[in-house]
Amino acid sequence: MKTSAGNFFEDFRLGQRIYHATPRTVTSGDQALYAALFGSRFAVQSSAAFAQAVGYAEWPIDDLLAFHIVFGKTVPDISLNAVANLGYADGRFLKPVCVGDTVSTVSEVIGLKENSSRKTGVVYVRSTGVNQHAETVIDYVRWVMVNKRDPESTAPDPVVPDLPESVPSAGLGAACPEISTVDWNDDLAGSRHRFEDYEAGECIDHVDGMTVEEAEHMLATRLYQNTSRVHFNQLSEGKGRFGRRLIYGGHAISLARALSFNGLANAFHVAAINGGRHVAPLFAGGTVFAWSEVLATAEVPGRRDVGALRLLTRATRDCPCGDFPRQAATPEGPGVILEFDYWALMPRR
Amino acid sequence: MKTSAGNFFEDFRLGQRIYHATPRTVTSGDQALYAALFGSRFAVQSSAAFAQAVGYAEWPIDDLLAFHIVFGKTVPDISLNAVANLGYADGRFLKPVCVGDTVSTVSEVIGLKENSSRKTGVVYVRSTGVNQHAETVIDYVRWVMVNKRDPESTAPDPVVPDLPESVPSAGLGAACPEISTVDWNDDLAGSRHRFEDYEAGECIDHVDGMTVEEAEHMLATRLYQNTSRVHFNQLSEGKGRFGRRLIYGGHAISLARALSFNGLANAFHVAAINGGRHVAPLFAGGTVFAWSEVLATAEVPGRRDVGALRLLTRATRDCPCGDFPRQAATPEGPGVILEFDYWALMPRR
Amino acid sequence: MKTSAGNFFEDFRLGQRIYHATPRTVTSGDQALYAALFGSRFAVQSSAAFAQAVGYAEWPIDDLLAFHIVFGKTVPDISLNAVANLGYADGRFLKPVCVGDTVSTVSEVIGLKENSSRKTGVVYVRSTGVNQHAETVIDYVRWVMVNKRDPESTAPDPVVPDLPESVPSAGLGAACPEISTVDWNDDLAGSRHRFEDYEAGECIDHVDGMTVEEAEHMLATRLYQNTSRVHFNQLSEGKGRFGRRLIYGGHAISLARALSFNGLANAFHVAAINGGRHVAPLFAGGTVFAWSEVLATAEVPGRRDVGALRLLTRATRDCPCGDFPRQAATPEGPGVILEFDYWALMPRR
Repeated sequence: MKTSAGNFFEDFRLGQRIYHATPRTVTSGDQALYAALFGSRFAVQSSAAFAQAVGYAEWPIDDLLAFHIVFGKTVPDISLNAVANLGYADGRFLKPVCVGDTVSTVSEVIGLKENSSRKTGVVYVRSTGVNQHAETVIDYVRWVMVNKRDPESTAPDPVVPDLPESVPSAGLGAACPEISTVDWNDDLAGSRHRFEDYEAGECIDHVDGMTVEEAEHMLATRLYQNTSRVHFNQLSEGKGRFGRRLIYGGHAISLARALSFNGLANAFHVAAINGGRHVAPLFAGGTVFAWSEVLATAEVPGRRDVGALRLLTRATRDCPCGDFPRQAATPEGPGVILEFDYWALMPRR
Repeated sequence: MKTSAGNFFEDFRLGQRIYHATPRTVTSGDQALYAALFGSRFAVQSSAAFAQAVGYAEWPIDDLLAFHIVFGKTVPDISLNAVANLGYADGRFLKPVCVGDTVSTVSEVIGLKENSSRKTGVVYVRSTGVNQHAETVIDYVRWVMVNKRDPESTAPDPVVPDLPESVPSAGLGAACPEISTVDWNDDLAGSRHRFEDYEAGECIDHVDGMTVEEAEHMLATRLYQNTSRVHFNQLSEGKGRFGRRLIYGGHAISLARALSFNGLANAFHVAAINGGRHVAPLFAGGTVFAWSEVLATAEVPGRRDVGALRLLTRATRDCPCGDFPRQAATPEGPGVILEFDYWALMPRR
Repeated sequence: MKTSAGNFFEDFRLGQRIYHATPRTVTSGDQALYAALFGSRFAVQSSAAFAQAVGYAEWPIDDLLAFHIVFGKTVPDISLNAVANLGYADGRFLKPVCVGDTVSTVSEVIGLKENSSRKTGVVYVRSTGVNQHAETVIDYVRWVMVNKRDPESTAPDPVVPDLPESVPSAGLGAACPEISTVDWNDDLAGSRHRFEDYEAGECIDHVDGMTVEEAEHMLATRLYQNTSRVHFNQLSEGKGRFGRRLIYGGHAISLARALSFNGLANAFHVAAINGGRHVAPLFAGGTVFAWSEVLATAEVPGRRDVGALRLLTRATRDCPCGDFPRQAATPEGPGVILEFDYWALMPRR
């Protein structure tokens, strides 16, 4: 059989390493498409001149674009038969990704647990994005519920990895050079608010809403070489649970992050992903809004230039965020679709 | 308050300079997206080899792409609360913009006039696009009607700037190197008609029509980092005046310019914008056609290589232009949506 | 008359050479858009590092992207008044096309034959894509049925060129450097199956389906500067035979090729096009599937590194390919829309 139907629960074993196809060279075309798809306005990723003025040796691409490229490669091997994408944890951004870099992804199976129904099991993988110099650029854990090929087959002893509730602040600056805070131009960056101006408990409505079209999420998802059929095949999805294509969860993450510029313009770098939950589906025609709660502020050990904000960004569908909604959307009704818990870096005064 | 709700009439003062976020490095990805969105075929902007053969030191991006990038940055500060975009004038293209250039925009308030209703006022700004060498690349005036925060607040004494009816031909060649007319290959450029073949009063139907999709205008408008909510938020626009998203006026300008290749293939450079009026809205699903009237032909002082055509290009919605329509469209019915008065350069014999 | 209404049958003469507008410099933006539009995953075209590791001096763009760019230029001169695109033959890929190359196209009329109705005629052209060094990169024959301006006009004596049923295997490697088969990493490439694993008669279902949106096919077709109005103008097409825009046939070819990765991941290079027939139309909203039949396997004379597979790839609309369907689609019903007969190269063991 030359075509792949994806892996089932029985195909995974603890400690297994999976070298994913296809390596991908990042180009300035990827940057432009990402800009056109999300309208992100963070200065470091929008301007090579700004990035170099504040201390970057090379102009980095958007952190989430790099994440989606690393993630996309894992889909054909890990989640083609996934029933549900259950969560992320311990996502770390370790080196900037720049135009010309070639990224590939390796995953290691770090946990396996059959469900009580015996029809499915949970697979935990740590996926590592590597550049052409064999340096790790991004590293994260994800767990998915995968169908068993045969409910009667024997499952291995359950192993559930120990995962941190959040990434410790000590390692947050790895992908960020020393930032010259005096060369950071607040006018150009879009905000006078720096690290010291934010405090735990603060809630920020990002105001704007963005409606999503089928062509847009498919362009994005193909750009990352994510092949999950639920995003692309209306003939099969039209007969499925929702009657239509389901948008890649990462699309909502990128929209929420781009919208968060209004209120968090100086939060220039996604340093770590503590967790993410897609609490309701997003479909074309839906309008995405977002608001963020500052869960914590933290110094980054050894760094006087930047501080870290732990943010819980909620994206909603068809629900403006002026009153900071927390209720999950139903498939048809408005509400929260995403809870994304991450660390962002921001220049200090 | 960390989020911006945009400026109101009271927030502007005469002589005020506004340094807009976000600087933007132009990439070849922007060129390709612009090509994919509009299908422009002018040889200088499509081919580095052609541009260099006729005399460009570097391959320039499309003039209107540069304009949209310069313009987009002004939206969050100038027109987020605009009731209407009233006009443009005195737009000059002063230096080519090339891949790798970083563009930022500064605006100066040059006029303020409260309307008689006292609910709104007109703000005039001169916006200047600047590259990484602090050289002005584009410079134009625009005026918008902006809401007052409080109708009772006192307005400053009215100042209305003196604006030229058209840009004088003396300054038209600033962004255009000396063109080698013998190296200009008419076959490759797509037309044997040069400057001497056009005359004032001539009308040219550009024949082709292009239907616009929601995904397309949003991709374009985000690419320019234009954040005006009327283009993106179906949830709010669905309840608004038109029941749907309004397409960025510059999208119609770029479509009309791309369509104008059929009849004006050698009009390779937009040298100045004399004025522009969006006389009716454009929505997704509409099919755009265009025709141009040659308002004047002019020598460019000191230049033997190129001449200038002053063109009034009208774009229509759902209305082929074989009979040169001048009637404005209604919101639902066919007709003219745009009158765009500009100077284009064309090689001489 | 400064606008072009395209050529009619009477405008062509045997031996005529047509130098098409517009030369086009290929950028990394084109690569990224092609990736976003089709989701292709072949390693050589996705990764500069992979391409260089296996022997390419420079990173080539996707072969079909190069083909579409070469093809697009011919439309305004050859097929603007075409009633039907009848076929392709003898398509050869002779040099890789890389970022920075400028491509232009020349066509020679090699056959003319009036139809018995006297209203139309068939025009045969050999079109040649040339790079900035005047090297031929792609060369193919196509024939189209074109309207006569006047049914009464006298037609030239019929000449029908002699066309090969398939491109001989001797010339297949021209655009492919010597491949280091030991440096070919099957994990990264996505398949352990090499040339020796395929045999004539084998049928491969490519499994996945991809739904097409209006914005997508128009972005692609404009990227190639293909101006055929049937793809873009809903106002006129809405009144036409199908009531909607017809998708460029090459869009289905690229979708089928991208889908064929699942089963043919190591078929990295399109070396020749033997023929192609668009047996039914594709419209937005349709879901494209594909399957391939190995028509033949062949050694490439003088090459130990790669072998050639002659593939007949059929694309379908709204019709999964598990049972290898051969029935053409009707305008509304499911079935085959494309039969694409080509040679692909694959590394040997």
